[in-house]
Amino acid sequence: MISARNQLKGRVKSVTLGAVMAEVVVTVGENELVAAITRHSVETLRIQVGDPITVVIKATEVMLQKD
Amino acid sequence: MISARNQLKGRVKSVTLGAVMAEVVVTVGENELVAAITRHSVETLRIQVGDPITVVIKATEVMLQKD
Amino acid sequence: MISARNQLKGRVKSVTLGAVMAEVVVTVGENELVAAITRHSVETLRIQVGDPITVVIKATEVMLQKD
Amino acid sequence: MISARNQLKGRVKSVTLGAVMAEVVVTVGENELVAAITRHSVETLRIQVGDPITVVIKATEVMLQKD
Amino acid sequence: MISARNQLKGRVKSVTLGAVMAEVVVTVGENELVAAITRHSVETLRIQVGDPITVVIKATEVMLQKD
Amino acid sequence: MISARNQLKGRVKSVTLGAVMAEVVVTVGENELVAAITRHSVETLRIQVGDPITVVIKATEVMLQKD
Repeated sequence: MISARNQLKGRVKSVTLGAVMAEVVVTVGENELVAAITRHSVETLRIQVGDPITVVIKATEVMLQKD
Repeated sequence: MISARNQLKGRVKSVTLGAVMAEVVVTVGENELVAAITRHSVETLRIQVGDPITVVIKATEVMLQKD
Repeated sequence: MISARNQLKGRVKSVTLGAVMAEVVVTVGENELVAAITRHSVETLRIQVGDPITVVIKATEVMLQKD
Repeated sequence: MISARNQLKGRVKSVTLGAVMAEVVVTVGENELVAAITRHSVETLRIQVGDPITVVIKATEVMLQKD
Repeated sequence: MISARNQLKGRVKSVTLGAVMAEVVVTVGENELVAAITRHSVETLRIQVGDPITVVIKATEVMLQKD
Repeated sequence: MISARNQLKGRVKSVTLGAVMAEVVVTVGENELVAAITRHSVETLRIQVGDPITVVIKATEVMLQKD
């Protein structure tokens, strides 16, 4: 169990690979979330379109916007 | 318009104030998200329980976990 | 209004595009600030050299160095 | 020399101490920047109002906002 | 398995609780690492002095310094 | 002296360059740590395999995982 407070279950919608970084779009309910992680992690976890996946975010990284 | 790719609309569920930091829990659909922001920001934005609010997260802060 | 406490007005000096990430240099007064954001954000916001732009940084990401 | 690309010279305007975290406001030219760092770091570096100080921010933590 | 590339096994040396945040010092081999996480996470994970624990850090948060 | 609490001495094991980002693997004792920094920083600091280097991480970026 990790201390990161935000954990959302979703499904991989797309994977874009660069030389070092990769962008993974995840569908979570009605929303889409985007993760910029290393290409190495995508390969190690074998992240592919359609995979069930959990999005994890540390609370200190979350901002709030009020209209 | 901000470059941060993740923007989720929700509603403030709880606010806990410390001397410097504050913890705000936001209900987003069926999920709860937690933000650790400065107390000063909570006061400046007048964030209160029940407020509609947008959660904002930079893509480089998002991790993925595969079971 | 976003909770991120640091907001500095500047002008885009350069944009470098990678496959996934992009580097944007912004002139703020006498200083230069560098942002590593996704290429997708650069394209969505249509960030171009010469554009007026606001640099935004969450307070928990700021460090201090004393000589 | 640290890899963090953003380094701005300024002067400490205020220090607020919590039990674990501290908030330090730094004047940089015409701007103010806010750092949320641990109280322990404020004490170890003996950060006090009036001190010359350098604000350091990693490029991957910087966002851009276009009006 | 989480995408965060840095995972170091250690043991909890100390825990300091604030109202919102907590500071946990972890001994990893000959080094000490410090985590600033929410107090809520410390309580949920029941983190106590002496516990075996894994330190987890996303690669995009790591900086390098050359003398 | 920088406020970032985590500073670990190691040696560069590998460097992978992308257009914007770079991945640097550092051996620290028995562990390996990975940093995703800008290519520009790798070039400015002239980071090369075999170099002694210090890994620096802000405490607010560190998570804990308990089995």
